[in-house]
Amino acid sequence: MGGDHGPAVTLPACRAFLQSHPHAHLLLVGLPDALREVAGWVDGRCSVVPATEVVAMDDPVEVALRRKKDSSMRVAITLVRDGQADAAVSAGNTGALMAIARYVLKTLDGIDRPAIATQIPNARGGATTMLDLGANVDCSAEHLLQFALMGSALVAATGGRAQPSVGLLNIGEEVIKGNDVIKRAGQLLREAAARGDLNFHGNVEGNDIFKGTTDIVVCDGFVGNVALKASEGLASMVGGFLREEFERNLYTRLVALLALPVLRAFKRRVDHRRYNGAALLGLRGLVFKSHGSADALAFEHALARAYDAAGAQLLQRVQAGIAHAAPLLVPAPAAGD
Amino acid sequence: MGGDHGPAVTLPACRAFLQSHPHAHLLLVGLPDALREVAGWVDGRCSVVPATEVVAMDDPVEVALRRKKDSSMRVAITLVRDGQADAAVSAGNTGALMAIARYVLKTLDGIDRPAIATQIPNARGGATTMLDLGANVDCSAEHLLQFALMGSALVAATGGRAQPSVGLLNIGEEVIKGNDVIKRAGQLLREAAARGDLNFHGNVEGNDIFKGTTDIVVCDGFVGNVALKASEGLASMVGGFLREEFERNLYTRLVALLALPVLRAFKRRVDHRRYNGAALLGLRGLVFKSHGSADALAFEHALARAYDAAGAQLLQRVQAGIAHAAPLLVPAPAAGD
Repeated sequence: MGGDHGPAVTLPACRAFLQSHPHAHLLLVGLPDALREVAGWVDGRCSVVPATEVVAMDDPVEVALRRKKDSSMRVAITLVRDGQADAAVSAGNTGALMAIARYVLKTLDGIDRPAIATQIPNARGGATTMLDLGANVDCSAEHLLQFALMGSALVAATGGRAQPSVGLLNIGEEVIKGNDVIKRAGQLLREAAARGDLNFHGNVEGNDIFKGTTDIVVCDGFVGNVALKASEGLASMVGGFLREEFERNLYTRLVALLALPVLRAFKRRVDHRRYNGAALLGLRGLVFKSHGSADALAFEHALARAYDAAGAQLLQRVQAGIAHAAPLLVPAPAAGD
Repeated sequence: MGGDHGPAVTLPACRAFLQSHPHAHLLLVGLPDALREVAGWVDGRCSVVPATEVVAMDDPVEVALRRKKDSSMRVAITLVRDGQADAAVSAGNTGALMAIARYVLKTLDGIDRPAIATQIPNARGGATTMLDLGANVDCSAEHLLQFALMGSALVAATGGRAQPSVGLLNIGEEVIKGNDVIKRAGQLLREAAARGDLNFHGNVEGNDIFKGTTDIVVCDGFVGNVALKASEGLASMVGGFLREEFERNLYTRLVALLALPVLRAFKRRVDHRRYNGAALLGLRGLVFKSHGSADALAFEHALARAYDAAGAQLLQRVQAGIAHAAPLLVPAPAAGD
């Protein structure tokens, strides 16, 4: 039901996803009226689970959590808790999704706070996995270690790398750089690497996200959110400038026509839709978040990401990674969580 | 002497700057041997001030500060302190420049910590002034208010806006978003706005930097540094992809040739060299930092920025802004400064 476009986007995406994933089953949770067309899908690998309410994109977390107890979001996550679904995917309100997922599923042992991890295209032609992206605005060093372990499990499960490399986002590469939390986190990450819990590269800087210096970049949710949104802002500005210059006059429009294959190939390489589908990590169940503005192609990618993660036993891998590093994960002091 | 290229870049930049600024005088500080060619400049508005040492780009701050007491950086900043120069400009080691400037010039009354402010091109065709960019990795709400006041003075002095708008960088626009420091900073900024000390727009997000939602964006140095470097990384990736696609084969190279005027116009619009020259604010003297990798055009812009700031009485404006807001600037608790 969620996202900026609702079923108008999610239903076509579901249909395409079922076609490209012949063993997948979908439970479509929402207002039955809005999902009526699904009855016409002959496939049998798709059913509707009714919900009577919908969390709006601008609902405060409290409303979503306390008042809308039969929302499509809540019902979908409950299906995951009860083992009826292997993963839930939503394009809805991020804050509400995180709060409901945390309330219904609870966090894993050894995890104080779930984190949001997404993939960002990098100059190597692959993607950098970055977390946290806004679930946690005040992180301790232990939280950052938890993020590193969860991110490693995610990339190992879905990215096909046994020992993905982890970078700690900082304002310089040297060990002495950064604030106290970052310096302590660096120490914890080095200890974890020495114990074989993860493959720690060291500090990385903002530009390393796009260089693809490491498979994973770990940071505070405040920093991650700002860096991601700043990048989105820059990408949109650059795209706008390019379009304006090619639309300036008759000559430039003609050149644009000739350059169409080049511009299309360029666009494909920076197309963030292929990377849609952020993982909410650290919960006792798989939940994926699609960008609210996703179109059908983007939402289909989010579905595929959740499907692949469930098939690759992401939950068990995260649990195992955390359990192995347990001695380093002394409970972090409460910091206004 | 500083920067990645030294006098090979700075000297041509100085020469061009003198030509375009007929009332400017330059004191070139450095090793006399490296500056020998200046003697041939007939103009008389340029002289060499000798220094026997140079701070290297990778010198630790302690070495620059305690052991190289006759460095070109130190001598140049001392000229500012002694009133022989109106501003100092360096393309050298940022950490060393900040430490020396702070030691030699001291901070203004009411300022706990200097901040680094730079201009970032935005989609409106203007520039957003952002601070801090890395001088302070752990800021209190009071520090962020100081940054807002100093940034306002900078844009009022050099950007031709009497009441520049200030945005507080956050992970959402709502007042309740963010961590405790940000929420308290928001409150302080609202109080300052109510007193007429500044024009506070409210919270802004990462993408607003490039949208140009506000004239000034205020943030912690850690966040600012990561956001700026992430943007640089993205810009470089996107530029690389565009170049690769236009160089792919004979057809695309031909198209690139035809598209040359378009691509040049595009490049001009995203050319960060025009915005080179970050201000070190909060000191008892004007110091500007050029990007280390600046070419002659970029360095010339940094010189022009410093010249304009001195001409517009930036120092006095910052002092006046801080003095006016003094009642709000109760000393912030020391936080591992």
